[in-house]
Amino acid sequence: MSGDVAVLGLDFGTSGVRGLLVDAVDGAVRARAAAPYRSGAGGVLLVPNSPLLARQHPGDYIAALTSVVRTCMSEAAANGVVPDIAGIGVCATASTPIPVDGELRPLACQAAFADNLHAAAWLWKDHTAQHEADEITAAFRSAAPARIAWYGGIYSAEWYWAKILRCARIAPEVFAAAADWVELSDYVPAWLCGVFAPSQLQRNRAVAGHKAMYRADAGGWPMSILRSLEPTLPTPAGDVRDGGAQIGTLCPSAAAALGLPPDIPIATGGIDAHVSAVGAGVRPGTLVKIMGTSCCDITMGPPHVSLSPISGVSGVAPGSVAPDHDGVEAGQAAVGDLYAWAAEEHEHEALTAEAAALAPGQSGLVMLDWINGSRSPINDARLSGLVIGHTLATTRAHHYRAAIEATAFGAELILQQIEAGGVAIERIVMCGGIAERNRLVARLFADILERPIEISGVRDAGALGAAMFAAVAGGVASSIAQAQQRFAQPPIEVALPRKSEAYRQLRTLYRALHDAFGRPSGALAQIMPALAHLRETTASGANS
Amino acid sequence: MSGDVAVLGLDFGTSGVRGLLVDAVDGAVRARAAAPYRSGAGGVLLVPNSPLLARQHPGDYIAALTSVVRTCMSEAAANGVVPDIAGIGVCATASTPIPVDGELRPLACQAAFADNLHAAAWLWKDHTAQHEADEITAAFRSAAPARIAWYGGIYSAEWYWAKILRCARIAPEVFAAAADWVELSDYVPAWLCGVFAPSQLQRNRAVAGHKAMYRADAGGWPMSILRSLEPTLPTPAGDVRDGGAQIGTLCPSAAAALGLPPDIPIATGGIDAHVSAVGAGVRPGTLVKIMGTSCCDITMGPPHVSLSPISGVSGVAPGSVAPDHDGVEAGQAAVGDLYAWAAEEHEHEALTAEAAALAPGQSGLVMLDWINGSRSPINDARLSGLVIGHTLATTRAHHYRAAIEATAFGAELILQQIEAGGVAIERIVMCGGIAERNRLVARLFADILERPIEISGVRDAGALGAAMFAAVAGGVASSIAQAQQRFAQPPIEVALPRKSEAYRQLRTLYRALHDAFGRPSGALAQIMPALAHLRETTASGANS
Repeated sequence: MSGDVAVLGLDFGTSGVRGLLVDAVDGAVRARAAAPYRSGAGGVLLVPNSPLLARQHPGDYIAALTSVVRTCMSEAAANGVVPDIAGIGVCATASTPIPVDGELRPLACQAAFADNLHAAAWLWKDHTAQHEADEITAAFRSAAPARIAWYGGIYSAEWYWAKILRCARIAPEVFAAAADWVELSDYVPAWLCGVFAPSQLQRNRAVAGHKAMYRADAGGWPMSILRSLEPTLPTPAGDVRDGGAQIGTLCPSAAAALGLPPDIPIATGGIDAHVSAVGAGVRPGTLVKIMGTSCCDITMGPPHVSLSPISGVSGVAPGSVAPDHDGVEAGQAAVGDLYAWAAEEHEHEALTAEAAALAPGQSGLVMLDWINGSRSPINDARLSGLVIGHTLATTRAHHYRAAIEATAFGAELILQQIEAGGVAIERIVMCGGIAERNRLVARLFADILERPIEISGVRDAGALGAAMFAAVAGGVASSIAQAQQRFAQPPIEVALPRKSEAYRQLRTLYRALHDAFGRPSGALAQIMPALAHLRETTASGANS
Repeated sequence: MSGDVAVLGLDFGTSGVRGLLVDAVDGAVRARAAAPYRSGAGGVLLVPNSPLLARQHPGDYIAALTSVVRTCMSEAAANGVVPDIAGIGVCATASTPIPVDGELRPLACQAAFADNLHAAAWLWKDHTAQHEADEITAAFRSAAPARIAWYGGIYSAEWYWAKILRCARIAPEVFAAAADWVELSDYVPAWLCGVFAPSQLQRNRAVAGHKAMYRADAGGWPMSILRSLEPTLPTPAGDVRDGGAQIGTLCPSAAAALGLPPDIPIATGGIDAHVSAVGAGVRPGTLVKIMGTSCCDITMGPPHVSLSPISGVSGVAPGSVAPDHDGVEAGQAAVGDLYAWAAEEHEHEALTAEAAALAPGQSGLVMLDWINGSRSPINDARLSGLVIGHTLATTRAHHYRAAIEATAFGAELILQQIEAGGVAIERIVMCGGIAERNRLVARLFADILERPIEISGVRDAGALGAAMFAAVAGGVASSIAQAQQRFAQPPIEVALPRKSEAYRQLRTLYRALHDAFGRPSGALAQIMPALAHLRETTASGANS
């Protein structure tokens, strides 16, 4: 058995945890593991007839973490390697805030709140707080327009403060019992370090800056405006730290649970998308698209340059991807989810082959990619799906191709918005399972965006990025850029663009629909919010 | 074996023939039979990638006819009854014109045209002639606006002259070889009577008046305007006769083929929808909705009253439903077809139960009923499907219910258009397989139209109506009204309306979408025609 040095990266996704144990020098994979969350449907707690609600049980996080770490270590041992662990890095979905008591225990893990979904983790894709998001947007537009401009001018229903405010309104007993609300990406590192007081929390700059409007250059947390909406909103306790910083070491009790020695350096947490972008090689001029059930678009500005706010993108936040760069995040709320919906119960591989055989325009369909609401450039969770053009001869493969095309047309709007904001993009990299499994996606994106699309060679980019953070926190790499260089993988494919007159026409149709239904001034802007309202108010089940 | 008197009604539908042998005195069913057409998919000849094309092989009609008549007679014999046949009536889909030679032989049955789809019957739902329909509309709007006003101001791609003009353009060899074009509903009675010259044809007033713009009060066929588009268009030969008139008797060769004695009186043919309405009890003030793959709405004005043209309905034509009344026809191009699309491969009964359990608005969906183009009130085959509002929580049952609701909102627009045209409707009767099998349809129509909906007790209304025509032609009933009275059946259910605020709101949304995408002045009126154009021009297969 060799005793080389490795780092451990852990990615807390929507349905479970993925872990990667990699060599600290060259990033070679020593072990890989995954474990699902135990509760709900695919790890998500749902309520019938409330499609906007999505929660998770915080106890599932630690259980899955334990399983993944133990599997990684026994896999490494089975391969004859028991490496020293130089650092542990964590990334997680965001914004996924968890209400906790004064000792950082999740309320959902306490008997009094065991059956209360509002005391659980409010998963990123929970969209119940649209009304509160609208209130926050309005309050900032009125009192601090420059502050909200960093978030594309719109605060999202998916984000921290909207969810806490929603909880204050509909579950005051939970709100009152919560000493603080901790993002999942901060909760796990704190648990690993054995932090038991909110005041000792070290929150990551990405999630604080992108989801909770923290800006060190503007007084930190914007509590005074938020408190005009709800006077008892708690100020997030503790400090805010850069990605790759060491925030502590593995405490004895967590070490025992994981089967690891104590005192391993623990890195600041990070947002899964941002950390995945790091894993896939994001740098100034490179846009990384993390293609999962939804898609995140991540890039960064040049070093030591302050970007201006960018209209319609989810956020620009200092140091949120790597220290000394402004991070840029945009996204689409459904990508893989849209493909799965279009495929219905059919087999993706067969549909992909059929869809690939179609010419642009042949399906006769145009779709909007809003089945899970719209994130960028229109931030509105009340927007919903739209399909136009089906005839009695329309097939499932027609639908499937139109779904891919819709996500590409949506992606093109985001790319244009980022470049219009002064951030030039020279290179587009796709990572995530969908990019790797379905090569038609990158091909149609290349044709529609009229740019080459690289498919990243990195598997589990989130876990690899977290391992890079761990390498920096553990002192085995001098910077995130150096860790990226050492752990890099070549792309597995580069899809080159082919010009298409049909796509030029479909682009015009997509945009006409996008603007008519999505822009506040659109001719049919009332339709989707009215349908969302009807759906929510007539549902016979619980209303959240 | 008793020797009572019966009449035979035959209904030539989209996929096959249905026959009904009924007692000439009280309409009691003596035998019932059906036979499918042998060619194509469900009797329809299709071309991949040309969703607008739908043809049939004329030879299939006579083969299915023979099978149905022989089955009816042997079933009656097995029940101990060998009745005298007092008359035979026929109805058929329309407009389904067949190119024939100078001896009324279909070109498709000749070796030179055996593989030429343009020489086959152009089935009602063939939509390849939209461009020619537009030309005809434009020519009449310019030269004879009063004439086209009888057809809602728009000539349909489904109708006689559009199809013939299309054939002249794309298959000149077929057009040149055709001595005449005969509607299926005239071809079968002529075959039964042994008519072998176009000049001896006796065409039915319904199909001549509704589909080919014949008006006895305005010079008959409008050939001069039509010939401004194509100088060699043939004038339909022969005479035009009322429904229920006797046009001849069963000729010896047809009698031999059917296994019947010769010289049985043969009634004028009729359009299936119109004749079904007669079978289901249409009279002034009663609207009959024939619910099949598509829906036809049929009513009639008071006796000896000339109606004004009605904007947006397919047609007002003298004597087209019964002599001495103006017949009114409107329709929706997809009803059962839309439900089947929404159900996909799922079981209709289970979906209906789930859909029935939903509250109005709970699906969060709104749909347009244009998956097969729009017939009334917007006559445009280039319009296509639209679904808005799906989320990741949307189920198949949500879709299914939204499909039924879409057809009801569309039906409401048609009802309003008919009443705005001065034809008061006191009673709505649904017939057809869908009305009988899926009771949720009548219930949601009642709720949305805010009117009681009767489900007719008549099975095979088309064949029963044809039997009523046969009774009149054979002299065993004095009029169609008398035959209706004697053969009448009580409704099997009457769905009573329940007011719903959600449906009031959904109605507003449906109409906003209907007008935005369907009206020429609509904000998004360019979308669906552009998609249809792309679909047609990029299809790799044959273009018709």
